[in-house]
Amino acid sequence: MSQPAKTLAAGRPGAAGSVGAVETRYLDLPRPLRLDCGRELHPVRVAYETYGTLSPRRDNVILVCHALSGDAHAAGVSAAPAEAGTRDGFGAEERDGAGGKALGWWDGMIGPGKAFDTDRFFVVSTNLLGGCRGTTGPSSVDPATGRPYGPDFPVITVADMVRAQRAFLDALGIERLAAVAGGSLGGMQALEWAVSHPDQVDAIVAIASTHALHPQGVAWNAIARESILRDPAWQGGRYYGTGRAPDAGMGVGRMVGHITYLSAPALGEKFGRRLQHADDLRYTITEPEFEVESYLRHQADTFVKRFDANTYLYLSRALTYFDLARRHGGGSLARALADVEARTLLIAFSSDWLYPPSASEEIERALRAAGKPVSYELIEAPYGHDCFLLEEARQTPIIRRFLGGAG
Amino acid sequence: MSQPAKTLAAGRPGAAGSVGAVETRYLDLPRPLRLDCGRELHPVRVAYETYGTLSPRRDNVILVCHALSGDAHAAGVSAAPAEAGTRDGFGAEERDGAGGKALGWWDGMIGPGKAFDTDRFFVVSTNLLGGCRGTTGPSSVDPATGRPYGPDFPVITVADMVRAQRAFLDALGIERLAAVAGGSLGGMQALEWAVSHPDQVDAIVAIASTHALHPQGVAWNAIARESILRDPAWQGGRYYGTGRAPDAGMGVGRMVGHITYLSAPALGEKFGRRLQHADDLRYTITEPEFEVESYLRHQADTFVKRFDANTYLYLSRALTYFDLARRHGGGSLARALADVEARTLLIAFSSDWLYPPSASEEIERALRAAGKPVSYELIEAPYGHDCFLLEEARQTPIIRRFLGGAG
Repeated sequence: MSQPAKTLAAGRPGAAGSVGAVETRYLDLPRPLRLDCGRELHPVRVAYETYGTLSPRRDNVILVCHALSGDAHAAGVSAAPAEAGTRDGFGAEERDGAGGKALGWWDGMIGPGKAFDTDRFFVVSTNLLGGCRGTTGPSSVDPATGRPYGPDFPVITVADMVRAQRAFLDALGIERLAAVAGGSLGGMQALEWAVSHPDQVDAIVAIASTHALHPQGVAWNAIARESILRDPAWQGGRYYGTGRAPDAGMGVGRMVGHITYLSAPALGEKFGRRLQHADDLRYTITEPEFEVESYLRHQADTFVKRFDANTYLYLSRALTYFDLARRHGGGSLARALADVEARTLLIAFSSDWLYPPSASEEIERALRAAGKPVSYELIEAPYGHDCFLLEEARQTPIIRRFLGGAG
Repeated sequence: MSQPAKTLAAGRPGAAGSVGAVETRYLDLPRPLRLDCGRELHPVRVAYETYGTLSPRRDNVILVCHALSGDAHAAGVSAAPAEAGTRDGFGAEERDGAGGKALGWWDGMIGPGKAFDTDRFFVVSTNLLGGCRGTTGPSSVDPATGRPYGPDFPVITVADMVRAQRAFLDALGIERLAAVAGGSLGGMQALEWAVSHPDQVDAIVAIASTHALHPQGVAWNAIARESILRDPAWQGGRYYGTGRAPDAGMGVGRMVGHITYLSAPALGEKFGRRLQHADDLRYTITEPEFEVESYLRHQADTFVKRFDANTYLYLSRALTYFDLARRHGGGSLARALADVEARTLLIAFSSDWLYPPSASEEIERALRAAGKPVSYELIEAPYGHDCFLLEEARQTPIIRRFLGGAG
């Protein structure tokens, strides 16, 4: 586990390196996956990428878990042709999962000398179960019918996602994980790993995440799903091959999501109340009049081109279901965490109102009360939930230090 | 201006009286209304109610202005048959404008001995221009075609709403107003009155309002409108008489609005993460699983039965346009308020994140800097924007004191 000679200078771009060109690969799980809902899923294909080198003792594996709209392409430059999309340093959830884009969604965090240092660690990133970027999900073909599952895809949970990752790692011959890391829904997966596989995880890094989404977050997710479900083009979920898809409804859902990922002050700073046409009202109800209105439309239009509506429904449902205390502790978070053996790093952002610091603090308190090793870092930053994708420079020394790197 | 013998005991229901049975009346403006967009509107009918007695000198008139989904029925018991709807003390925006319901939307504030004391004042409430509860709006018949205006209705502004009110009061023979009062969009109208008719308004009460909606609020409104516009049943706004209406899209828009009217803690307290079926997941993506999901559906279903989608579009657009500084001050709020003569009372609620206290504080500072009489009251209350409808008991002594009552 050699350390790179250079020390990462946080905030100095170029100080750390890139993993270079990468390609998403695919692995078919050898056995059916038994799910929380009682059903079995088979076959299950997992899309994945790896960065760095697996140590001979196979003890340097970090599993990186993505958020709702992510994919396996977490770092490096995709070999796939780049789609439209830029890293503009704002509204970064947009990058999250922008499969086919040149740069991975967490490229600033994964690479030589970076937070998840590929000079030390073998970083594995999978598209999660239910996804639409290569891993089996609602848009995959149901072997029973020869057509895409659509609404016949089983309703999945975060625990099911972890089961799929466990089975995938088994197939790769990886037993233990040096760490599981992720933000948002990705952090939920990391927490679920620590609770359900305590003897197999040395450390977890849960960023801008929660042990259970608060009721307002449940509501936002419900609204986004409603918007898809109420779009006639959804067609009960059987829109594949019909030439129509619920782009209109998913676009609105994405707009809701997008605003919840950003803080009100960040939106204010970026757009203010600037008009599209220099301080001149056009008196229209159908066209964007404010810059922020035009931005929302653009975000929605871009998103629906790359994401499957049923996957949105299923993953949104899974993340609202996630509830460590209910599932593992009979309602008690402390009991749910009682068997955790992993060291835990929690990172939260002051302006994140969707996955607020209070959620991380509840986890911290419960772990601390149980005598578990836990570090909690609250980063003051203005960009809301999207900070977990934007504030790479400030997370890097924290994560490196936690993982035993140069800091 | 006799004072009632009894003193209002805030928080003691029944201490103040009801205005009793009321009926909405209608008045046709005698002349065309010239609008900001350059068009003229004619005919214009105004739906209104009055409570109390006009003094011989006509100097005791309070104009009450409603919010987005309101109507003229602000107080008392409507003579119209009651629709479904209860005052459950939560999610009260729902009551706002629930025309046909038994009780007016601000009944707790208007009546003998109440905040707007009908023993002293002659309270006038109109359905605003563009509305769908009796005042001319997009669902009214366009005399040019004999069919409802739909998208041909002119795009209106808050200043246009005030113009319609001004013309309506002229027709009633009322020149001056002792006060203009309202919450949210209603508060915008009160502010617009003070700025555009400084010599005709003695006082304004702007509650949970703003001089210009912040960019996140603009975004929420844009999302709600998008949801309507993208519903195929909207049919370019010409859905009247087709047997289809954009209920699906407006329902989602209303859900967005509803959540922005409430605070996250209030939602948490009311619903928590309780499941519909006692802690038992049903593994469904189409049906409500959490109580808050079911609540949202119910709110949407109730709302679309009583509200016109085009009115929603037009009023939402008007309230995002509203910008005192841009319109009246060349970008400067201080300049916009320079000619105000009315005494101003601003009330904000600590948990209101849609019309946050900071907005009222900006108005307070600008008025104070200009040497204008202004009172600002910040009420610590947990229910978010809906507080202006819920926290009647705590607003009452503030408003009574401001209006020179017993407090």
